[in-house]
Amino acid sequence: MGLKQEILKLLEENREQYLSGQEIANRLSFSRTAVWKSIKALKEDGYEIDAISNKGYRLDTTCDLLSAEGIRCYLSSDYHNVPIEVHQQIDSTNTEAKKQAMNGAPHGTVILAEEQTAGRGRLGRTFYSPKGTGIYMSMILRPNLHLSQSIHVTTSVAVAICQVIERLTNQKPQIKWVNDIYLNQQKICGILTEAVTDFESGDVEYLILGIGLNVHTKHFPVELQAIAGSLNPEVVTRNQICAHLLNEILPLCEDFSHPFLLDEYKSRSNVLGKWITFIQNQQRYEALAEDIDGQGGLKVRLKSGEQMTLNSGEVSIRWR
Amino acid sequence: MGLKQEILKLLEENREQYLSGQEIANRLSFSRTAVWKSIKALKEDGYEIDAISNKGYRLDTTCDLLSAEGIRCYLSSDYHNVPIEVHQQIDSTNTEAKKQAMNGAPHGTVILAEEQTAGRGRLGRTFYSPKGTGIYMSMILRPNLHLSQSIHVTTSVAVAICQVIERLTNQKPQIKWVNDIYLNQQKICGILTEAVTDFESGDVEYLILGIGLNVHTKHFPVELQAIAGSLNPEVVTRNQICAHLLNEILPLCEDFSHPFLLDEYKSRSNVLGKWITFIQNQQRYEALAEDIDGQGGLKVRLKSGEQMTLNSGEVSIRWR
Repeated sequence: MGLKQEILKLLEENREQYLSGQEIANRLSFSRTAVWKSIKALKEDGYEIDAISNKGYRLDTTCDLLSAEGIRCYLSSDYHNVPIEVHQQIDSTNTEAKKQAMNGAPHGTVILAEEQTAGRGRLGRTFYSPKGTGIYMSMILRPNLHLSQSIHVTTSVAVAICQVIERLTNQKPQIKWVNDIYLNQQKICGILTEAVTDFESGDVEYLILGIGLNVHTKHFPVELQAIAGSLNPEVVTRNQICAHLLNEILPLCEDFSHPFLLDEYKSRSNVLGKWITFIQNQQRYEALAEDIDGQGGLKVRLKSGEQMTLNSGEVSIRWR
Repeated sequence: MGLKQEILKLLEENREQYLSGQEIANRLSFSRTAVWKSIKALKEDGYEIDAISNKGYRLDTTCDLLSAEGIRCYLSSDYHNVPIEVHQQIDSTNTEAKKQAMNGAPHGTVILAEEQTAGRGRLGRTFYSPKGTGIYMSMILRPNLHLSQSIHVTTSVAVAICQVIERLTNQKPQIKWVNDIYLNQQKICGILTEAVTDFESGDVEYLILGIGLNVHTKHFPVELQAIAGSLNPEVVTRNQICAHLLNEILPLCEDFSHPFLLDEYKSRSNVLGKWITFIQNQQRYEALAEDIDGQGGLKVRLKSGEQMTLNSGEVSIRWR
């Protein structure tokens, strides 16, 4: 880690207080001049650093840039050594993570980007990922997982994200089946989990868990304006959110089979008990969403009284 | 396509007859000198080319080098344009195919190698792939396929490979559950199907179908000598076998759901009706293999009379 990164780490760890140049120099065993040069370089990278004579340096409270150092401050000690990469711009963090996974990147590797030029969502859709406003993160996971358990990944991760948001912002997000996260009737987060597996054993070789979370996103393209929103947290930074997400999701990989998560998943559903419309095989249906089964299927009742179970991903649903 | 490839194509298409240098030059609109130079270059590549005065050139009947041109001669017209790549040496054709698939390589792309340095098999095993003696082939397939149908890929491809071998060599191979191909009680072929999918929809984005077939392999490492064998065909070349495999497998991708294949799969099983031993959770069992169900599970009856269904890949089985 270079001096610039070490200073950034100190500043992130001490967001509440000023650190004098002399103190930073002493703690890192560098000259004050070297410290001053690195502070200057950090400012050029976009960090807003308050400098007050006789008090020293502090990250501006509104400064919210993603960095491995900033995330690591809040990571639980179990995960302190996971590789974290922050790109300023990338096509898609999931695509990059898949490439790295194929080349052997270890379990827990995290790829982040300030901006995605080709962010991807479910069913071949794009994920709008403008610069500096969201968390666009992909994790390389190598759990001991059989394909038949994949639904547990989808439900557990959706629940974990809701829990993190609730804890950090006191807002209570909901889950639109399958795994879009909503806040105040607006979609703020999408999840795309891609897996590489062999058909003969059904074992997952690795999976790429992609999370796109709108944090400060304000200006959406016209087609998203009616449905998309963002978290708009007051004090929490994106680095903190990332770290809490990692702290919640990495332990899940030890065992994705927690059955109780399905209950919490259901309790956070903004679909159950509602009349929805969905399109299947080019036909439009109206139905009451009644339950979610252990395989993640959405059990609905048509107006005719007939029951159907929708399988994840095959249908696009809307509230009436 | 360069002149060398065009000449190779002509020679492969006319394996039974001699073509004079003048005829080749006329057909390809090049000078006889250019033709002669290309023939020399082909010989340097390892092609054995018989040259008889007043008759011309012909590929030696024993010459069996893999080439896109040689394969295309036998491809059905529907698949004439699939990209075919032959590497002299590669780590693993499946790994290369996965890389190319991620970069957008089209459905039907075929990667072959004369030698694999890190050929992979099921359950993390290696696949022994010595130079010039086998078919080490991976196909990039983009079928319209839900994960729940993956068993059909495994069974259909195993059956298709048996059919091709039977048609070309008049030998009747069998399938050892899940999808190893046996001839005369020796394993001659393994299949490794890897897929990339997203968990939310369960749709397969693409799959990599890897086939390793021992064609002329004679010298196996000690640990394989008791179980491995090879096809040893008399007149058929590896290019012909590859083309026939493609001709059988590519149409399957239109619809992997043919239920009748399970019957043919079962009729070719060398496990059904036999007493086997298998190891599951570190415990050794003896059982009679009774049936294969629609999900590819192997139904066995223990000595105690108890029935069990083994799921593909979880167990390693042996005949008693």
